[in-house]
Amino acid sequence: MGKSRLEAFSDGVIAIIITIMVLEMKAPHGSELADLLPVAPTFLTYILSYVYVGLYWNNHHHLFQVVQKVSGGVLWANLHLLFWLSLIPFVTHWLGENHFTAWPTALYGVVLCMAAIAHYILSRTLLAVHDGGNKKLADALGRDYKGKLSVVVYAVAIGLAFVLPAVSLALYALMAAVWLIPDRRIEHVIEK
Amino acid sequence: MGKSRLEAFSDGVIAIIITIMVLEMKAPHGSELADLLPVAPTFLTYILSYVYVGLYWNNHHHLFQVVQKVSGGVLWANLHLLFWLSLIPFVTHWLGENHFTAWPTALYGVVLCMAAIAHYILSRTLLAVHDGGNKKLADALGRDYKGKLSVVVYAVAIGLAFVLPAVSLALYALMAAVWLIPDRRIEHVIEK
Amino acid sequence: MGKSRLEAFSDGVIAIIITIMVLEMKAPHGSELADLLPVAPTFLTYILSYVYVGLYWNNHHHLFQVVQKVSGGVLWANLHLLFWLSLIPFVTHWLGENHFTAWPTALYGVVLCMAAIAHYILSRTLLAVHDGGNKKLADALGRDYKGKLSVVVYAVAIGLAFVLPAVSLALYALMAAVWLIPDRRIEHVIEK
Amino acid sequence: MGKSRLEAFSDGVIAIIITIMVLEMKAPHGSELADLLPVAPTFLTYILSYVYVGLYWNNHHHLFQVVQKVSGGVLWANLHLLFWLSLIPFVTHWLGENHFTAWPTALYGVVLCMAAIAHYILSRTLLAVHDGGNKKLADALGRDYKGKLSVVVYAVAIGLAFVLPAVSLALYALMAAVWLIPDRRIEHVIEK
Repeated sequence: MGKSRLEAFSDGVIAIIITIMVLEMKAPHGSELADLLPVAPTFLTYILSYVYVGLYWNNHHHLFQVVQKVSGGVLWANLHLLFWLSLIPFVTHWLGENHFTAWPTALYGVVLCMAAIAHYILSRTLLAVHDGGNKKLADALGRDYKGKLSVVVYAVAIGLAFVLPAVSLALYALMAAVWLIPDRRIEHVIEK
Repeated sequence: MGKSRLEAFSDGVIAIIITIMVLEMKAPHGSELADLLPVAPTFLTYILSYVYVGLYWNNHHHLFQVVQKVSGGVLWANLHLLFWLSLIPFVTHWLGENHFTAWPTALYGVVLCMAAIAHYILSRTLLAVHDGGNKKLADALGRDYKGKLSVVVYAVAIGLAFVLPAVSLALYALMAAVWLIPDRRIEHVIEK
Repeated sequence: MGKSRLEAFSDGVIAIIITIMVLEMKAPHGSELADLLPVAPTFLTYILSYVYVGLYWNNHHHLFQVVQKVSGGVLWANLHLLFWLSLIPFVTHWLGENHFTAWPTALYGVVLCMAAIAHYILSRTLLAVHDGGNKKLADALGRDYKGKLSVVVYAVAIGLAFVLPAVSLALYALMAAVWLIPDRRIEHVIEK
Repeated sequence: MGKSRLEAFSDGVIAIIITIMVLEMKAPHGSELADLLPVAPTFLTYILSYVYVGLYWNNHHHLFQVVQKVSGGVLWANLHLLFWLSLIPFVTHWLGENHFTAWPTALYGVVLCMAAIAHYILSRTLLAVHDGGNKKLADALGRDYKGKLSVVVYAVAIGLAFVLPAVSLALYALMAAVWLIPDRRIEHVIEK
């Protein structure tokens, strides 16, 4: 089974998710700079979410570069990942509207955590489909320290949300920064 | 006539349908866990609808793997299927907002039923285009017991919605589970 | 310049237009059948608009089957067509909300008329790019009686909207029916 | 790394941005021509924004015609450009709702300016990836006088927005007109 439609469908869903988030930012009625202020927290969470969705698209793109075939299981593992990503606009909006209070901050982390787990499941399903016959994929994924670390950091941040939500948000931003440089792992493997 | 644009267009429409449904879930104004409660029924129907739309995409993907050409009739049979799928966000929202009462439950079933019929028409139109010359497609579709069973189960569930809506919803979920394992039929044929 | 990205972009825009229209249909708050009644006119216009947008996608698909290359002018003629199509959700909503009164009926016709003209311009621009060297395209387009007829019928319907809006709506539906069988012209040419 | 998914993803995002803007135009409740009047400023800004997003898609299309490969850096430079484009519906709405007052006019210019800078960064990143080995790309981009001029004009228009917003808007429209003829530069290079 070819991978091209899975890529096209994922591109479509991720493109919609990343642009739908802007719809959450309602243009204010007044026309002064001060009228924009209430939108500011939503804008900040929008940037964070944009980077995260962009990261997932990037990682998806890199991952499928070294994939040769997909199975029914891969289709569902992929839909599972897209499901959690599709909840990002909802939690982004809730977080932005409530100025970074406890529960919205925690729920944002839950969605990030589930997306990270879904990405891990997807990569393992892909490995299984290739039966170890795809050395590039195995090398590229390696032990996936970063994937496992993310899940732990998100779990910590979820707990902290009830005590110090600002620290949780800093951790989300930190993990985004850590993931911003993930591509090289697979890029190096491709070039080999 | 090639099938690539039909696939790309269908991918686009299905990707939008699956992500539009999240827009129906409005982030609550309060920031407590209790504020999320009213969203819960919508979230549950969202999951069910996500699985259904995912199923249709998967089946579409599998079906067109063994298709070699399309006709004007196929384009319209496909648009007919997409029409019913495009109504899923509407009935999902109505069902979620009304906590699973009779009419919304029935209408949800009507849309599922019409989509199943539209899928059946699409597969028969495809068979006709290939004039029996596509043995893979004929084998893959077979007698299509599952397709016919779905229509019957949905019809029963629509009637039950006015007596026991909870049972109707259970039947919708059950049929989704039954369809979650349909791919092998075509996958086996492809591998032959 | 290749045509594949123009096709992909148009597929994306048309897919969004056709699904955005469903968003206009707000699920009612009550859960009785009677609560659905106010949505009925919107639903009827949604079906008409769905058929029209589906027709334009189909015609676009057929037209570009026989196209070999595009130019900067074609890109803009195509964006011009998509502009008018993008206004269909707006006029569909206005028409549905106002139960088929004069101005909304007329404006619906104006958008259909402009889209027909834009389609005509696009096909002529494509002919010019191929310098008469694409006999298939020239044959397929022919004298384009149907395209010219549409513009005239829409113009008449716009005028009638202020006297007999029901007749205008019947004319819109009639032209959709006439266009539902346009594909054969190009299909025949392709098969030759 | 291939460029096809980057193109497909960008096509998807730009297609959504260009169609989302129509959603900002709410169909009025009354059914008279006068009821449409309040929508007129939004409609005018919608046309301007449609042309701008169309321009960016056209330029993107032309630019990637002469690109042979992409890198992780290019993916992010592209996402950066899409980020600013994704804000266009927001500023379009704010500008349309406030009848072209100072701050909305200025912010519209800021987004245009940042998009122009992002486009410049993207083109330079692409040049760097090709290490000067892509003469077509280098020729096509040239000294990029028009790109630099745009940034200056937008900066002037932002300042003027607080004194003569009408002149700022005229400058935005003027720059769109200037960019409407940019394609030939790259088209000529391709034909060579």
